[in-house]
Amino acid sequence: MAAAERLVVIGGDAAGMSAASQARRLKGPDELEIVAFERGHFTSYSACGIPYWVGGAVQDRDDLIARTPEEHRARNISLRVRTEVTAIDVAGGRVRSRDLESGAESWTGFDKLVVATGARPVRPALPGIDAPGVHGVQTLDDGQALIDTLERTKGRHAVVVGAGYIGVEMAEALVGRGYEVTVLNRGEQPMSTLDPDMGRLVHDAMNGMGITTVSGAEVTKILTGDDGRVRAVATDGETYPADVVVLGIGVEPETALAREAGLPVGSSGGLVTDLSMRVAGHENIWAGGDCVEVLDLVSGRRRHIALGTHANKHGQVIGSNVGGGYATFPGVVGTAVSKVCDLEIARTGLREKDARAEGLRFVTATIESTSRAGYYPGASPMTVKMTAERRTGRLLGVQIVGREGAGKRVDIAAVALTARMTVEQMTALDLGYAPPFSPVWDPVLVAARKAVTAVRKGGA
Amino acid sequence: MAAAERLVVIGGDAAGMSAASQARRLKGPDELEIVAFERGHFTSYSACGIPYWVGGAVQDRDDLIARTPEEHRARNISLRVRTEVTAIDVAGGRVRSRDLESGAESWTGFDKLVVATGARPVRPALPGIDAPGVHGVQTLDDGQALIDTLERTKGRHAVVVGAGYIGVEMAEALVGRGYEVTVLNRGEQPMSTLDPDMGRLVHDAMNGMGITTVSGAEVTKILTGDDGRVRAVATDGETYPADVVVLGIGVEPETALAREAGLPVGSSGGLVTDLSMRVAGHENIWAGGDCVEVLDLVSGRRRHIALGTHANKHGQVIGSNVGGGYATFPGVVGTAVSKVCDLEIARTGLREKDARAEGLRFVTATIESTSRAGYYPGASPMTVKMTAERRTGRLLGVQIVGREGAGKRVDIAAVALTARMTVEQMTALDLGYAPPFSPVWDPVLVAARKAVTAVRKGGA
Repeated sequence: MAAAERLVVIGGDAAGMSAASQARRLKGPDELEIVAFERGHFTSYSACGIPYWVGGAVQDRDDLIARTPEEHRARNISLRVRTEVTAIDVAGGRVRSRDLESGAESWTGFDKLVVATGARPVRPALPGIDAPGVHGVQTLDDGQALIDTLERTKGRHAVVVGAGYIGVEMAEALVGRGYEVTVLNRGEQPMSTLDPDMGRLVHDAMNGMGITTVSGAEVTKILTGDDGRVRAVATDGETYPADVVVLGIGVEPETALAREAGLPVGSSGGLVTDLSMRVAGHENIWAGGDCVEVLDLVSGRRRHIALGTHANKHGQVIGSNVGGGYATFPGVVGTAVSKVCDLEIARTGLREKDARAEGLRFVTATIESTSRAGYYPGASPMTVKMTAERRTGRLLGVQIVGREGAGKRVDIAAVALTARMTVEQMTALDLGYAPPFSPVWDPVLVAARKAVTAVRKGGA
Repeated sequence: MAAAERLVVIGGDAAGMSAASQARRLKGPDELEIVAFERGHFTSYSACGIPYWVGGAVQDRDDLIARTPEEHRARNISLRVRTEVTAIDVAGGRVRSRDLESGAESWTGFDKLVVATGARPVRPALPGIDAPGVHGVQTLDDGQALIDTLERTKGRHAVVVGAGYIGVEMAEALVGRGYEVTVLNRGEQPMSTLDPDMGRLVHDAMNGMGITTVSGAEVTKILTGDDGRVRAVATDGETYPADVVVLGIGVEPETALAREAGLPVGSSGGLVTDLSMRVAGHENIWAGGDCVEVLDLVSGRRRHIALGTHANKHGQVIGSNVGGGYATFPGVVGTAVSKVCDLEIARTGLREKDARAEGLRFVTATIESTSRAGYYPGASPMTVKMTAERRTGRLLGVQIVGREGAGKRVDIAAVALTARMTVEQMTALDLGYAPPFSPVWDPVLVAARKAVTAVRKGGA
């Protein structure tokens, strides 16, 4: 007996397969048939874990896979890997797909559709960008290709282009592989998701670790050898030898398919959904993960943020709604945490330039403290920068650069932003205190106190 | 020229000296004279750090001292150590003090008074309780006395009476000193600040570390040898050999002086203040730190919680108000974090029995997760228990038992409690995610999701 309805999912990673799994929990196979298409070989894997696999901290690729195609199939999800969806026929309620092995194309009808096509790494149109040895690291297939290159070439010099999260994590990974690593960064500082003063701390720390970090470097050309493989990276300044190049410039939502089908794309480049993750104007189409834009609860603006934790939440929400339940994704506050070797980097909320762009006036407070009581072994320095709206004192953002124990403190600010707290309210927060865990005034509280003083004085 | 006003501070640790220091920042010596009395030898020290000093993680006693009497004096605070205040004459606006070295008594007038007399360890009236070798660990003087005993006796067996924060931290300290440690605990489980099911995890972990943890053991007598020193601890069950005994039964507010002066004491045993930390009914008397009760924002009830982080906040608030500014201490949500060896223990909000006592109906959700992505090196297991009000889904409390990286996650819940979030709201929190820091669903989010399901189903 055919199921009453068919759900088609495009994209077999976090958002798509979370949606499929959650829908399956709520509806059995005779109520809902689920067909999922994945272009690559793998499903439900942690793309965020790729740098740690490349670097060797994670030994086995399969450790990154939460659920294999076989495991999904065992849950009555019809999963087609190495099968690319090439068209969405919205009016006809069907998608066209191509088997990447055989080249065969076919149409599959849907009653409900989930678009979870993810993001793709930005590849600037530079001479040599497609040379062997130049790698993106967005998918598990990408990671495998990079590892194959590393193992085959056994080079000495690695260049990472871009110094955002992926860039710094890949720098750590390549250091772990024994490479001499140069990070080329177009902007004023690494980590453009931080304010420049905090990015400067990252810059200095990375150079201190032996990672050559060059800011203000515009890559002009990828130079290749006689064998056609990458040899060096030329910038508007120097040229850097490279046996391997990793692109960590950032990602952009993969929306070509959806655009062609007429689905709405916002100014961020991501698909536009409502709070239930349904594509605006389409009753039976949902979208989630790295291909959509999300509401930034602090600025009220829609942004594109590619992050596994959001993708999983989107999938959960979509699956609940597809399965006849009710759930929403209210938005984000822009939290991110990362590390490069033992340096922890975290941020949430608005940067100064974001606040300025929204017409907000603000004050900032930057403090130095330690992750544990100063006298406790392992207490490590950390810098916390806090931004608050002038007059109202509403928290606008927090950035943290430090060592062990620094990064996850950003969660305090993430919850406070969600609750729209003022920095004055934050000074009274009852945070966990014991000498192995925190100074008697948690660094976030110290920053809040200083921000209160700044708000009282006015300024900015 | 005499100052316009005199502030007298009773108690030279966190609350008292924070108040004095903050008042001094706001008012110079010709506006405000500040006289502070401290019974012991030390000022402004971290009592919470004593276990780590005893255990050897902190080498030097002076590391625990944030500011010495001399440093306070250099800031124009007239500090009298080894001087005990023996009476407060509220009507007369003066305090009587005794120099503990000379025995000399004198009166000192005040315009404003801060009572920061702290807490004292509970010493049950047991035979032998005053024998040499039986130690409390509330003050730096207490800590020094214990270390002197440990160095003199070089024993093998230590018994800790009580298994609250101080008890478990002292157990770790004594293990660090090479002792065979037995923790005797009257209650059903160690850590009565946790629900019994979570306390059981602590019990099992402590026994797994080689700390003999005996629950349901009522101490009946301290046995002494021919030299009068402690030899063993007898319970209603077995008798345990002891070269040293540490009392970790808890503390009670030190309010004898304030009671005699007619200052109001609440049902918790702590002094009653308003939100500005002014003693109820007394225009010019403030109180803070371990001798006061505080408002529990979750239950609405006043409780006594002795914790350095609160004491520092109280002092800050009092000093601001005494100095002519304005600040309040809105209350606590009951956050505490501790560790015993590598086991991290944290809690915030209400226990099941607290919720029941307030007439609240609730659901609970307990989950197991890991501190980092499961595949990331060093990912350690943690258990999170979440309690939410039935029907409304309001978060009521969170308890965490785990290893490295577990404890400080309680801050997420502490902020959410302050903001009176529901567990449904919590499921959407934008917490920091990267594999070295968290699974893609932070353990607190996993608990929130399970709690949402429990709220939907009803129950309890």
